[in-house]
Amino acid sequence: MNGKIPGSSRIGILTSGGDAPGMNAAIRAVYRAAHELGIEVVGIRRGFSGLIEGDFFLMDRSHVANIIHLGGTVLGTSRSEEFKTSEGRKKSAENLRNAEIDALLVIGGEGSFRGADLFNDETGIPTIGIPGSIDNDIPGTDFSIGFDTAINTALEAIDKIRDTAISHGRLFFVEVMGRSSDLIAIESGIAGGAEYLVLPGDHDAIMDLCARLTDAFSAGKRYAIVVVAEGERPGCSFEISKKVSEQIDIESRVVVLGHIQRGGSPTARDRVLAAKLGVSAVYAYTKSHAGVMVGELRRSVVLTPFDKVITGRQKPEPNIIRLAHILTK
Amino acid sequence: MNGKIPGSSRIGILTSGGDAPGMNAAIRAVYRAAHELGIEVVGIRRGFSGLIEGDFFLMDRSHVANIIHLGGTVLGTSRSEEFKTSEGRKKSAENLRNAEIDALLVIGGEGSFRGADLFNDETGIPTIGIPGSIDNDIPGTDFSIGFDTAINTALEAIDKIRDTAISHGRLFFVEVMGRSSDLIAIESGIAGGAEYLVLPGDHDAIMDLCARLTDAFSAGKRYAIVVVAEGERPGCSFEISKKVSEQIDIESRVVVLGHIQRGGSPTARDRVLAAKLGVSAVYAYTKSHAGVMVGELRRSVVLTPFDKVITGRQKPEPNIIRLAHILTK
Amino acid sequence: MNGKIPGSSRIGILTSGGDAPGMNAAIRAVYRAAHELGIEVVGIRRGFSGLIEGDFFLMDRSHVANIIHLGGTVLGTSRSEEFKTSEGRKKSAENLRNAEIDALLVIGGEGSFRGADLFNDETGIPTIGIPGSIDNDIPGTDFSIGFDTAINTALEAIDKIRDTAISHGRLFFVEVMGRSSDLIAIESGIAGGAEYLVLPGDHDAIMDLCARLTDAFSAGKRYAIVVVAEGERPGCSFEISKKVSEQIDIESRVVVLGHIQRGGSPTARDRVLAAKLGVSAVYAYTKSHAGVMVGELRRSVVLTPFDKVITGRQKPEPNIIRLAHILTK
Amino acid sequence: MNGKIPGSSRIGILTSGGDAPGMNAAIRAVYRAAHELGIEVVGIRRGFSGLIEGDFFLMDRSHVANIIHLGGTVLGTSRSEEFKTSEGRKKSAENLRNAEIDALLVIGGEGSFRGADLFNDETGIPTIGIPGSIDNDIPGTDFSIGFDTAINTALEAIDKIRDTAISHGRLFFVEVMGRSSDLIAIESGIAGGAEYLVLPGDHDAIMDLCARLTDAFSAGKRYAIVVVAEGERPGCSFEISKKVSEQIDIESRVVVLGHIQRGGSPTARDRVLAAKLGVSAVYAYTKSHAGVMVGELRRSVVLTPFDKVITGRQKPEPNIIRLAHILTK
Repeated sequence: MNGKIPGSSRIGILTSGGDAPGMNAAIRAVYRAAHELGIEVVGIRRGFSGLIEGDFFLMDRSHVANIIHLGGTVLGTSRSEEFKTSEGRKKSAENLRNAEIDALLVIGGEGSFRGADLFNDETGIPTIGIPGSIDNDIPGTDFSIGFDTAINTALEAIDKIRDTAISHGRLFFVEVMGRSSDLIAIESGIAGGAEYLVLPGDHDAIMDLCARLTDAFSAGKRYAIVVVAEGERPGCSFEISKKVSEQIDIESRVVVLGHIQRGGSPTARDRVLAAKLGVSAVYAYTKSHAGVMVGELRRSVVLTPFDKVITGRQKPEPNIIRLAHILTK
Repeated sequence: MNGKIPGSSRIGILTSGGDAPGMNAAIRAVYRAAHELGIEVVGIRRGFSGLIEGDFFLMDRSHVANIIHLGGTVLGTSRSEEFKTSEGRKKSAENLRNAEIDALLVIGGEGSFRGADLFNDETGIPTIGIPGSIDNDIPGTDFSIGFDTAINTALEAIDKIRDTAISHGRLFFVEVMGRSSDLIAIESGIAGGAEYLVLPGDHDAIMDLCARLTDAFSAGKRYAIVVVAEGERPGCSFEISKKVSEQIDIESRVVVLGHIQRGGSPTARDRVLAAKLGVSAVYAYTKSHAGVMVGELRRSVVLTPFDKVITGRQKPEPNIIRLAHILTK
Repeated sequence: MNGKIPGSSRIGILTSGGDAPGMNAAIRAVYRAAHELGIEVVGIRRGFSGLIEGDFFLMDRSHVANIIHLGGTVLGTSRSEEFKTSEGRKKSAENLRNAEIDALLVIGGEGSFRGADLFNDETGIPTIGIPGSIDNDIPGTDFSIGFDTAINTALEAIDKIRDTAISHGRLFFVEVMGRSSDLIAIESGIAGGAEYLVLPGDHDAIMDLCARLTDAFSAGKRYAIVVVAEGERPGCSFEISKKVSEQIDIESRVVVLGHIQRGGSPTARDRVLAAKLGVSAVYAYTKSHAGVMVGELRRSVVLTPFDKVITGRQKPEPNIIRLAHILTK
Repeated sequence: MNGKIPGSSRIGILTSGGDAPGMNAAIRAVYRAAHELGIEVVGIRRGFSGLIEGDFFLMDRSHVANIIHLGGTVLGTSRSEEFKTSEGRKKSAENLRNAEIDALLVIGGEGSFRGADLFNDETGIPTIGIPGSIDNDIPGTDFSIGFDTAINTALEAIDKIRDTAISHGRLFFVEVMGRSSDLIAIESGIAGGAEYLVLPGDHDAIMDLCARLTDAFSAGKRYAIVVVAEGERPGCSFEISKKVSEQIDIESRVVVLGHIQRGGSPTARDRVLAAKLGVSAVYAYTKSHAGVMVGELRRSVVLTPFDKVITGRQKPEPNIIRLAHILTK
């Protein structure tokens, strides 16, 4: 990589943690907004791992051409244990200084921002976050990049399962992703017309579930879809299904959607959000912000300090919970 | 249709104007919320035309079973000239009274709410609106039902056209819907990575467009997609393409997306919005609201009087316009 | 159901066994071809169960309107133990005679044709089969209705998983359906660019798989997708993944696609095949064929006696196996 | 590009004419089959234009990584006037000889094979064709690469239009691609449940169309979709619609699908076909075939001399025409 033109700026960008559809659209937006302002952009491969190893390249127009619609991340991603150490972060800062990089943009989730927060504070290299996570569990933004695509992917699967559930008159348990967040389950359940949601707190409320299913089938219902949020226990729906079948006599099947929810071409909403936040992150840098995440709250772009992001808790819209109670039960 | 149980409530529901994906999800939500509260729901076929003709049926669970994912509207829709007359509205009110219907829910766009406003005021039958329109041009709600699906449909088409644009090194004009609104063009253009947007106000700014295209192709660009908002002139992109080709020597093609933008299975976002607004409309009725439209503004459900809806103007998010300027030019 | 017009014909139709996308298109084609010839069509609900219970209805145009694109089967389906008994079949025959039904059309798989074969022979009621199965394991036809949709569904999932596999540099095991047939795995594996196929015969050839994966990753490969055919052991890929991770040090994930492969709107190919076979089945009836399945072999419609269908074995195209060896290994 | 290892082989590959989904899967299959056999592959950019200009590059694994699912062609394509001259072809042959390329593989349609035929005969450089065309109008193969994707794209559009056609009770004219072939119209019309097909020969049979539509709407039909094959007159459906509305009083709309039919991720069928023909083309080269196109007829791979391809006429399956008559009228 050549040296910087004196007086010019150069920012580094990486994607970190679980990949999410729309990360490429965000990378493209960052590059294009920076380019417009005469700022160079350096791509950092494989998240914090590549940061520690100095796996950098100077981006040009070709690196962001024709990537807006691709799932995953062209920069690669990882979860790095080494970056959790101060040595790892020190090494990273040296690499950035050697490459004459003035600031770091991190696209990722809450875990990535913990590292970014420490990095920003310890090294003084201005670090700015862009929320990318299918779970939508990041405080400081109503939506994180990738969530809209993930619920649509889950929804398409539910729509397909409904075909066969109706044809056979069966009960289906559909398990969707979301460790710390119920939102994929809630929104895909409402949108998919699920009869029942099992959120992590309900994992043991089997008797209630059985009572409701019995009522529904007694009332003439011939099939049902139960959407299960995996919570901390991926695969839990097999167990739930087993317990239910011990109580009531309805033939059931289990589908665990798994990693297909991470992939796929991002939806319009995720691409527009990625564009908005990518551009805003560059502008935040030009205005000397640091140690913050750009997000969108109530349709306005907002900067939230990393420490508030990582100690906060994303408040789910109250309406959505009530809605779930009315429409899926 | 049988008489009402004394003391019970009965509401009528119709869809009006251009159909939009998610209308069925809204109908289902209305039915289910009403059913939960012991309110009967009467389906009115073919919009205001069916209202005038008394084309009614008492809905039961089977009418909303397995419709949540369907495009279009199972109630049918129309544009009625007769409902614009006071005779038409008077006849409608009689029909509703004869069928013992206490209130009317109208899913439609601005034009439909003009009629609904007059109807509410003249007849005293409480009328509540739910915004359904792919154009997203209705004041009082950030999003109308159907818009998210429409931009995703336009986006899928743009993604497909990009394949062939790149392969051939060509310029494509893609014309999207939207009479009074530029939003389909703006959002699908940003999401699709369009090189240029031609909004209705730009229809004659051909020289500027030519200059930008010449710049881009001189700078090594080998293909470009220009998204054109039809505005009041559907088909205008043929003319624009012709004028451009008179100025600059780049082979171009025109694609007019047309009515495919109205159809298709609604996205998660449109179905969740439809659920939210459908349920809220029923609650608004139970709380004796009338002459209002339910909408969602900054993530809160809000009621707006019809007269404000029809005289107002939906304010596009300021960010989105700036964003379009940065990313598509 | 009214009596038949003297001299006219009436046929019954049912769907049986696992549902498959395109069954509705076949039902529609049967109705329309029969209607054209002045033959009445009686719908039989829930497969052989509905046949035994006499759950019949006279079909009219409205029953096949707007169903061509729906997954599943509007007639419902089941697996019936009672139809395996001669009493069950005798009862069925009585029901058909009471309803003045002259012949029976069965859309289903090999298992359904075993029952249909006995029924045809024992009762003398002409019975004709139409092959519907996502597994494509039915002799007498190159493709069964539903297979093309199922491989495209599997393929979409593989495409999504590839996004995340590449981004994280990971190994993925993707398990697809197919009890007695490897074809979903083979075709979706070739089409998805899988690095390796694990067919039922290979379930224990772990060392070979490990060797190939080690080679690939040593040669610079950063991710890989292994498509696993479930065979008789759904869920087997968890075990395979575990064994592989005991041998080689590559982080892996498992995705079991499951029932989403049964649903979804049928592809063009499945709908055209369904149209062709549905119409041909009606013509076969008018030409007094009985005890046969209509199929398409080398692009010609062919009738195969049920006994050959149920004792035969569908020969996979030799090319496809060789191709899989060249492209996925 | 480095010189060849003595004794080794090197083949060139290009894509030509209209792009078709699946061309990338074919390029990948050629590369991988060749690589397996120790044959080098040289990519030629922009079809015959790049051949004439010597726009070549030696392909390695990275060039075909992660392209199997992409629409369009990563090699680019063009229609070259210069290649129609013997000078153009002479120059091309020199370029190939200078780059030590032993044979040429051409992925394209009938027009491209005319050039390939002359080139093979005049220069003695073995040339082998692989049929890629969304029109499916190439003799010597039952299906050309891209056709299956194109009909599915047309079908998805028809499904969406049906939503709105039903909701409004309207007549829609949907114009699909296909200059010299009616097959996109026929198959998407059958699969889409169109009420009527207008093939190029029927463009003037308006009275017949009007009579049928009048019959259908009198019999209670409330909407209809007419699929129109563009033939030699793209845009002809506007004219047809106008003539129809002069005769009968049914409100109608026109949708011209256009270039979206060329793009999109290839279907499973197109990718498997591309894999099969790509591999077979390499094998044909190793067996010293030249001046031939590889195709698949009745599920067997077959070589057809170019002169038969370009003078022949693809015979549509007789069944399909009859089927269209029964199901769409």
